[in-house]
Amino acid sequence: MKIHEMTASELARRLSRRELSALEVVDAFLARIGARDDELHAWTAVDAELARRQARACDAGALRGPLHGLPVGVKDILDTADLPSEYGTPIYLGHRPAADAACVASARAAGALVLGKTVTTEFATMKPADTVNPLNPRHTPGGSSSGSAAAVAARMVPFAYGTQTVGSIIRPAAYCGVVGYKPSFGTLSRAGMKLASESLDTVGVIAGSVDDAALLVAGSAIRMDLRAVETVGKPRLGLCRSPNWSYMTKEGAQAFEAAVQRLAKAGATLVERELPQEFNELDAPRVRILVYEIARSLSHEAGRHRARISAPLLELIDAGAKMPYADYASALEHADACRRRLADHLRDVDALVTPSATGEAPLGLQSTGETAMNRLWTLLHGPCVTVPAARGPAGLPLGVQLYGLPGADARTLGAAKWAERALA
Amino acid sequence: MKIHEMTASELARRLSRRELSALEVVDAFLARIGARDDELHAWTAVDAELARRQARACDAGALRGPLHGLPVGVKDILDTADLPSEYGTPIYLGHRPAADAACVASARAAGALVLGKTVTTEFATMKPADTVNPLNPRHTPGGSSSGSAAAVAARMVPFAYGTQTVGSIIRPAAYCGVVGYKPSFGTLSRAGMKLASESLDTVGVIAGSVDDAALLVAGSAIRMDLRAVETVGKPRLGLCRSPNWSYMTKEGAQAFEAAVQRLAKAGATLVERELPQEFNELDAPRVRILVYEIARSLSHEAGRHRARISAPLLELIDAGAKMPYADYASALEHADACRRRLADHLRDVDALVTPSATGEAPLGLQSTGETAMNRLWTLLHGPCVTVPAARGPAGLPLGVQLYGLPGADARTLGAAKWAERALA
Repeated sequence: MKIHEMTASELARRLSRRELSALEVVDAFLARIGARDDELHAWTAVDAELARRQARACDAGALRGPLHGLPVGVKDILDTADLPSEYGTPIYLGHRPAADAACVASARAAGALVLGKTVTTEFATMKPADTVNPLNPRHTPGGSSSGSAAAVAARMVPFAYGTQTVGSIIRPAAYCGVVGYKPSFGTLSRAGMKLASESLDTVGVIAGSVDDAALLVAGSAIRMDLRAVETVGKPRLGLCRSPNWSYMTKEGAQAFEAAVQRLAKAGATLVERELPQEFNELDAPRVRILVYEIARSLSHEAGRHRARISAPLLELIDAGAKMPYADYASALEHADACRRRLADHLRDVDALVTPSATGEAPLGLQSTGETAMNRLWTLLHGPCVTVPAARGPAGLPLGVQLYGLPGADARTLGAAKWAERALA
Repeated sequence: MKIHEMTASELARRLSRRELSALEVVDAFLARIGARDDELHAWTAVDAELARRQARACDAGALRGPLHGLPVGVKDILDTADLPSEYGTPIYLGHRPAADAACVASARAAGALVLGKTVTTEFATMKPADTVNPLNPRHTPGGSSSGSAAAVAARMVPFAYGTQTVGSIIRPAAYCGVVGYKPSFGTLSRAGMKLASESLDTVGVIAGSVDDAALLVAGSAIRMDLRAVETVGKPRLGLCRSPNWSYMTKEGAQAFEAAVQRLAKAGATLVERELPQEFNELDAPRVRILVYEIARSLSHEAGRHRARISAPLLELIDAGAKMPYADYASALEHADACRRRLADHLRDVDALVTPSATGEAPLGLQSTGETAMNRLWTLLHGPCVTVPAARGPAGLPLGVQLYGLPGADARTLGAAKWAERALA
């Protein structure tokens, strides 16, 4: 098996036994970048010399930790002290922060090597860059973690950071046919992330397998006990088509139902589990929270660099700046009330299973696709994991999403790992 | 009345009527800095020419907003694009971030002029700089918002930002005899703040009066409806000596009881309101949350600049890095459970009243004082307001603290304003 085809977990094993050197691993992935990225545009910055220098230092010294010698891609909404951090906007062209983001610094302490920065949409919001879907370059890779999803899918890196405020990890991972993991809200520190919405922004990862995703999150939290993926045998799953089922494409809906059949056939117990009306009414409050907070987070840029912000984002910022505080406060209350009652609906299942996106990655690069199957789950703060489930009629992948209660990451990852095998 | 003796609210009125120019106001406060700061060391950076240039621009144009022409001090844990941002550590000497912190950018959009940066302890934690208490230079001004408290108390600026993770706004404000306001957790954006603990860090203000504090918070959130200070006539107050009453100095306890007597005499209804046992047991979980999170937030500095971090902070960081995730998660759960039950204990009162600190500002500059009267309230996420209450035997001020439920800022400010007058 070629190096770039190995899972991160397999690479970690071989690196820790010195059966592979960090330099060999880094060179293998740099070669993949050289071969694929002219077409895919997944990276905003790759410093091959820096990566190789770090790899050599890694090979020369003692084992550093559980991520020893593993290359990682860093979404360009996260700061890095030795690579530009441009947040997907011309405002920060060439910007070089003073410190690494906390997750990056922690992963480096655990032995990871930063290969480069991956493309983000403008401030991790709507406006895409030019990254294409590795499975069909005429289709979007999804966003906002566009570059991380494309880079992992094309095996230019074993895993990479993403962030999710609406659907920015799960959707691109599903569109590109890889695993996405948005941990419970608050699991990974946001120090050194360019914030958009403090109530929603969550740091997570995109990887080639559920185990690899769990490995990177644990290393990024300096806590390998977070790596725990519970062993879940024949899970009990709550089948939740969700309040936004009407957004599903015909093909997406068919593929989801077929995937659910395969899960049942493999031994999962499936129980219908739609959420009550108050959850269906969460989208308007969610938009209020996002818009209010983004107007504050980006107030410096809105004041000083207005002409270089895209019109749709500027519209959000201006709407948020004008919003009465009471509207925002009541939206937070509604969301919090739903979060508190969510446990009642998940008590008797290992996880919910729900579509990762409304269908295959849409044609064209103007939009990163529909967020309808993501935004409720991000708001509710629990862990989301997407695993590849099927191919659609356009030949592009579809995912199913496992969702759990905040804090129940190990169980949710366990259910996802079971589903990953059942659907492989 | 001299300009530097006027409240921010009075200055705002005169500036908005153009009875005072922004340049006159800025010059008056710059003169105060010139006269006092050689002794007090409240500022890390003052750019007089920049402040005067901004004031002239303000005077030449249309009214900008509710903070038009008002000078503000910015605690040096918050980023500013045009002034150094050093976070109280030699690691960031001369550091110049690319953007203003969100609260600063919003206040500037509302017309505020940044006079300079105020001293913070190391990363807003324990290690003090050389700021002294304006009322007696042999005593600490408190911390971590040391410079902001000293600058406001010495009328070198009408108000200034602080941040509170344990007791960093309320305690220094009380020690320096001014008003401190830590809004409900999440009220002001933390974008552009050097984070320590995402579950605790709160941006707030230090000011000369309750009205002034509310004015700066509202301007910093771009929402003047936040300025609302409810009119509270003869409040009903829950007298809470708190689980940490044993930390009170004899003189502090006496002064607090005397202040409570004066509140009662002025017409407040006081009901004893101690919190149940589960609240008394919150300090260990609080430490776990703080230590776990600070180890992640400062992982870059711990990895790259270890020798320039103070020994006590390094000890915290190392303890946090080693802490099992489950210990952190259970601490978050304990805190959250208490937050949910807090409403039961505050339903029938306008606010709790509790000491702002254990006594007068201690002698010496080695420590910023005891946080025992602050840390529970910060953890519980509700608004805290300290108002000057008395002078102790050393001639230094003591404050009383009004505390309310998260979101009940207007009512808590109203009770504080009533107490401010009753104790004046």
